[in-house]
Formats: sequence, structure tokens, C-alpha cells
Amino acid sequence: MVPVHFKPKGRGTMASKKTIEGNMLIAQSGGPTAVINQSLVGAVLEAKKNKEIKNIYGALHGIQGILDENLIDLKKESKTTLEAVANTPSSALGSVRRKPTPADCVAIFRVLEKYNVRYFFYIGGNDSAETTHILNEEAKKAKYPLHCFHICKTIDNDLRQNDHTPGFGSAGKFVAQAFMGDDLDNIALGGVKINVVMGRQAGFLTAAAALARQDETGGPHLVYLPERPFAMSRFIKDVKAVHKKFGRCVISVSEGIVDAKGTPIVTKGASAKEVDAHGNVQLSGTGALGDILAQEIKRKTSIARVRADTFGYLQRSFAGCVSETDAKEAFGVGAAAVKEAIGGARDGSIAIKRKPGRKYAVEFKRVPIRSVAKETQHMPAKFINAAGNNVTQAFIDYAAPIIGKLPQVGKLKRIPVRKA
Amino acid sequence: MVPVHFKPKGRGTMASKKTIEGNMLIAQSGGPTAVINQSLVGAVLEAKKNKEIKNIYGALHGIQGILDENLIDLKKESKTTLEAVANTPSSALGSVRRKPTPADCVAIFRVLEKYNVRYFFYIGGNDSAETTHILNEEAKKAKYPLHCFHICKTIDNDLRQNDHTPGFGSAGKFVAQAFMGDDLDNIALGGVKINVVMGRQAGFLTAAAALARQDETGGPHLVYLPERPFAMSRFIKDVKAVHKKFGRCVISVSEGIVDAKGTPIVTKGASAKEVDAHGNVQLSGTGALGDILAQEIKRKTSIARVRADTFGYLQRSFAGCVSETDAKEAFGVGAAAVKEAIGGARDGSIAIKRKPGRKYAVEFKRVPIRSVAKETQHMPAKFINAAGNNVTQAFIDYAAPIIGKLPQVGKLKRIPVRKA
Repeated sequence: MVPVHFKPKGRGTMASKKTIEGNMLIAQSGGPTAVINQSLVGAVLEAKKNKEIKNIYGALHGIQGILDENLIDLKKESKTTLEAVANTPSSALGSVRRKPTPADCVAIFRVLEKYNVRYFFYIGGNDSAETTHILNEEAKKAKYPLHCFHICKTIDNDLRQNDHTPGFGSAGKFVAQAFMGDDLDNIALGGVKINVVMGRQAGFLTAAAALARQDETGGPHLVYLPERPFAMSRFIKDVKAVHKKFGRCVISVSEGIVDAKGTPIVTKGASAKEVDAHGNVQLSGTGALGDILAQEIKRKTSIARVRADTFGYLQRSFAGCVSETDAKEAFGVGAAAVKEAIGGARDGSIAIKRKPGRKYAVEFKRVPIRSVAKETQHMPAKFINAAGNNVTQAFIDYAAPIIGKLPQVGKLKRIPVRKA
Repeated sequence: MVPVHFKPKGRGTMASKKTIEGNMLIAQSGGPTAVINQSLVGAVLEAKKNKEIKNIYGALHGIQGILDENLIDLKKESKTTLEAVANTPSSALGSVRRKPTPADCVAIFRVLEKYNVRYFFYIGGNDSAETTHILNEEAKKAKYPLHCFHICKTIDNDLRQNDHTPGFGSAGKFVAQAFMGDDLDNIALGGVKINVVMGRQAGFLTAAAALARQDETGGPHLVYLPERPFAMSRFIKDVKAVHKKFGRCVISVSEGIVDAKGTPIVTKGASAKEVDAHGNVQLSGTGALGDILAQEIKRKTSIARVRADTFGYLQRSFAGCVSETDAKEAFGVGAAAVKEAIGGARDGSIAIKRKPGRKYAVEFKRVPIRSVAKETQHMPAKFINAAGNNVTQAFIDYAAPIIGKLPQVGKLKRIPVRKA
């Protein structure tokens, strides 16, 4: 049941609403997630049901695999294997971070034509949507008939058009579970604990830490997001205030926090910068930001115990920590993309829309690829408190059903013994 | 069924094998684990069964709570609460890192006497065993009749007398699951990935990463332990060789690795050193070691993508990642300590011994506290390969039943499409 609310104008050589027979090619791109294979398997199993799609090819390592003609036959994979792969984190087809040049596009079409590929699905985030958009536009220019679809994923939850994205729920669950345990650790030993969470431009994942809170004394006590400028002096003031109140302080901070001028805080201590093909500075895979913040607290306060952890790549690929909602929806967007293509739609990206009403429910909608490509979406103001150092209840209400069930925490009542 | 093989000489004013009536006090010390509350609850539930033990007190934050008379009444906690607490990570009574001075010991006895405490249980690692040993010796000198027990725990798995320690299984499971996902992440995106694992002096937890391996190409490909001197030139050579062979490289490295002179590698880049009451340098809560190693690979090789994560405190307190064997055994050592005391034993530490035979089984043995205190145990030579950069099959066989079931990984058969 995938209601289609958007109908792109028919362009290129394909008759609108007419499906052509041919082969399908699917690939994965960008950072892996815990459920990106659900989308792959959702698409493959749906394609297997339809006779319009002859062969089902997987390109290894995204568009790189097309350029290298490094293709595998997904129709030869058993249902058992596919189902096991769906439940396995990281990109089963391999991934890539490569933005195609016009020359790449020409080369890609040659390969697609050679293998009679008429259905193309690219699973990824906003950069991958951009790649899909470029390919789609080039296909139109070249009058190459292609059903071209982007299937969304990103733990950052920053794709426009989407209420939330596949991958966020499971990464958020990991972050929340990590903070649950870490807050108890901080209660036991005291001091200040900083945890650096992924999120280049959007703070959703960093904010997900708030779901760990068990009561009004529970951490994270402070949440710093890329959506609000970060000032070191204000940060120190916040930490001192929380530490004075609770005798401890747990902080969730996004790797992507920037100062008022937009300069990433992490670059202030970094010796070397690394930039990927899409112009993104390397923020993950280094403990620098946590160390910068911990050093500053040690310098500016008398708090003895200050520790920083950087969750790094664990939060996107940890085996055995998946949100059921997330897994189901990730499978759904993959299947929906194929249904749309079989139904005759030329192109699009499958977005997750939340249905109005008290009970959590979503629907998948086809939207223009360019409307999710390149630019990212940020946390809305209603999710961030006025001081810019925490999230609101509205965020908790938004994220809870996506992240799903968390472990139960038992606490002693701690009834004091009367002094002898 | 706790067979007692060690009988300490009766000393002090207590008649051997005669139990005295009085109150019990229990506390937790050192770094928390995912199952340290199992031991607490195991001891409390066992004590509740016996009429020799009148009141059951918990001291908050270890010996600090005794000195401050910060005691809670554990008999007033319901069974439901206790069972929920048992399944919750981190130390429910709070923890501390404090070594008692002779003056502290005098003050502690005054409190114990005031509250008629005749049963004392201290849950912790080798430093906590040392504290328990000091207290026990001082109690004997002071002729204060006390059943004094150490209950083992440590994720480092480095307590002497023990085949393994409560806490290691769950932390090892976390490390293995993290490496399972991270290895798949590395397959997808390539390059070199370094993961820094806890383990000050013993490499068991770092070695547990090897349980993540799915086949002969699976990571971690290199494992560096504190038991073998770390040479940067050799490290670079190892990484180059693995990267040449597999086009990628996943590395598990202990936070505690030292050079041939015994100098921790992490201090080579650290700007400030922090030392705790037991003289231990701060190794965790900083991403420095990972960054030092990653920088060195970038400097000395042409590998473009090099990332480092430091697992930090997540591995000891992550909510929702517990080894069932570990949980059961942690509960068991707590209960066993109380049984021993009720049975008349004056003092001891409860050690886990593995029974001979193919099927995994353990028994709990009372051993002298001093035999587990202070010094730690290292990985035996049979668990480390000759080159000192990996573990052996003997280690895998040893650790697998302790860590228990891991998530299943599905892999595509990747049948190539014939070139068109």
C-alpha cells in the first residue's frame, strides 16, 4: 500500500505509466547503517515477484562497481541468504563515496546499456541522492530510458522530505543504550562525562541520547547540536551549573558543532584536515573533539574526573542493536521503490511521511530526487530548548516510536539506614 | 554447590567454623561492569535466606560510604527491584577508587562496630581485593571479629586465581559485536580501521575482538596486547602487509600497549597525565592513542582512509549487551561468598575455576584474598601468536563459552555477472 502523491512530468523517451522490460541494477553508497541491507533485500524480493524485471544485478561499491563492471547476480542468492543479509549491518554490496563527473555518467550509461539495465536503484543519503539525480538528468539528456530511483538511508536523519530516515532508528537506539549505561556509570563514579555523537550538520542522533533519561536527574544533562552555535565559555558555565546541582554531568555533543562563525570546533585542535569527494571535512574516526572539550573543562574548573568518549563508527554498524520499526521501514522503502518503478513511475526518491494522529504510523511517498539531494535538513526549532543546550519534550515524543523499545533499568530505592 | 578447597588458618578472635550473628555490609568498588549488580543481588538474596545475618546494609560508593556512614537498607528492597537491578549495568551502590590508609581502617572498624557488622563483602577487581585484604589484616590486628570477603569482578579479566572474572564475558561480547559490525563497515568502505579497547595490563578484552571473525579474511586482522612490546616500525609493516593482502585492515589494540622500555604508547602523545589513588595512569576517556596510531599510518603509508575509534566506557556499561554465562556466574560468586561466610569461613575471595573436560563448566572456590590482590594476571603465552600481533585458536576456544552467543552474520554469495 504505497500511496503516490507526486507525479513527475513525463520526460525522456519513456512513455509515462508504461513499464519497459529489462534488467535491474541496485547499489549502496555512503556510510553504512544497521538496516541498509533491509532496503536492498526489500527491493530485491519485490523485484523477484515481477516479470518485467528480468535479471537483478548488484554493483559492488556503488557507481564504482558500475564503472568497473563489477556486478553480481542477486537473483542467484537464496531467500535464506537474503533474509540473513537483511538482518546484518553495513552495506552488503560494499559502499563508495564518489560523485560522478559528466564523463563518469557517459561511462555508466554505456555499462547500463550493455547490460540492458532499465531499473536503477541507489540506496544512500543526500550525497547519494545527488549522484542519483545527476545520473537521472544525464540519462534524460542522453535519452536513455531508465527507471531511476533513490532509496533513502542515513543515520544522521537529515534528508529533506522525510519525517525520518532508515538507519536513524537503530543508530538512535545504540546511542540511547550507550547513554543509559554510561549515565549509570557516571552515577557510580561521578565527574563529567562527554560523549561525542555522529551528526555532521544535523543533531538528531546526538539528541537521541535524551531517550536514555530515566528521571529528572538522569543524563544526558546537556545536549549540544550543530544547529546552535557553540561557545566554549557558555559550555563551561553550563557544565559548572549541572555539576553543582547533581555532583556529576553527562553531555551529548555532536561531532559537527561549530562556533558562531561556522568553524567546526574539532578543527580548532586538529593537526590535519581530510576532505571527501563531496567536500566534507573528516569529523569521525578521531577522538579530537572529545579531548578538546575535556581539556577545556579540566583547565577552567576544579572538577577532578573528566572523561570523553567518541562513539565513532560503532553507532552505525554495531551488530545486534536494531530498532524493529527501523528495520521494517527500511525494508519497506526498498520494496516501495521497486513497486513505483514497476507501476510506471520514471524516477523519484521514496520518502517516509508520518501520518497524523496519536498512534505512530507512516506511509511511503515518491518525491522528486532533487528535493532530497545535496542539501540536508536540520532539527526544527521546536526540538531544541531556548538556551540551545538541550532538547525539548517534542523531540522525545518524535523520536521515541522510531527508536522503539529500550532495556529496562532497575534502581535501588536506597532507603537510608538510621545513623547509629 | 560450592566446593571449598582452601581453608585459611583460623586467626583473630573468631572460632573457626563457628558463625556469629550480626549484620552484613556490602559495597562495590572500582570500574563498573554490566553484571556487577548480579553479584550484589546474588549476595543479598543469599543473605536473606539465613537467620545469622540480621540486617543487610549497602555502603554507597565503597569504603567512602562506610567512612561517611552513608548506608542504605538492602533488606527493604523488594525482590522485584533487586532482580531488575541485577539486570542493570554499572554499580547500583555507586563506586569509588580509594585505597584505605591505616587511619581509614581504624575509622572503618568504628563504623562496622557501631552498626554491629560481622559480614563484610567487597565487590571489585585487584585494587579492591587489596583494599579488602588491608581491611581484613587490620581487622585481625584489631581483633575485630569479621567475616571479610572479596567478590571478584573486572572486565579486564586480569585477576589471579581466576580462569576468568565476572564482567569480562559481557564486555567481551560488546567488543566482539562492535568488531563484527565494524569489520563489515570496513569491508564496505575499505581502508584501515583501528579500535582501541580497554585493558590496562592484560590483553584479554582486546583479544576478545577475535571472536568477531567470520572467516579467514575477517577482521580483526591484527591484535596488539600489553603483554608484548609494541614497536611502531613493526606495526606499520604489519598494517602494510595486511592492506596489501586484503585491500583493508581492521586492528584491535589495547589502550595499555607499551614499548620495549615499558612506556605506554599513549603517553607519547599525551599532554597531561592523570594518576589515580592506586598509581594507575589514565588511559581511558581519551581518544589519544587511536589518533597517534592513525596519524602514524597516514604518515608512513599511502593508504588514504585511516580511522580510529576508542571504545571507552561503552564496553563496560552498555545497556542491553550481556553474556548469559557472565550474568549467571556473577550472581553465583556473590551468592557463594555469603554461603562461605555463613558456613563459617572467616575470609577469602571467590574465584572462578574452569572444570576439566570438553563441556564448559565452572566451580567457585574460596582462595586467600591476598592471592588475588594488587598484582594482576596476564594473558598466557599460549593465547598469543609468535609474532605478537594476533591471538591463537587456543584463546578463541577459551573465550567463546564465556562470551556466549553472538548475532548471526549473513553474507551474499556474490556470484559475478558474466561480462557482457
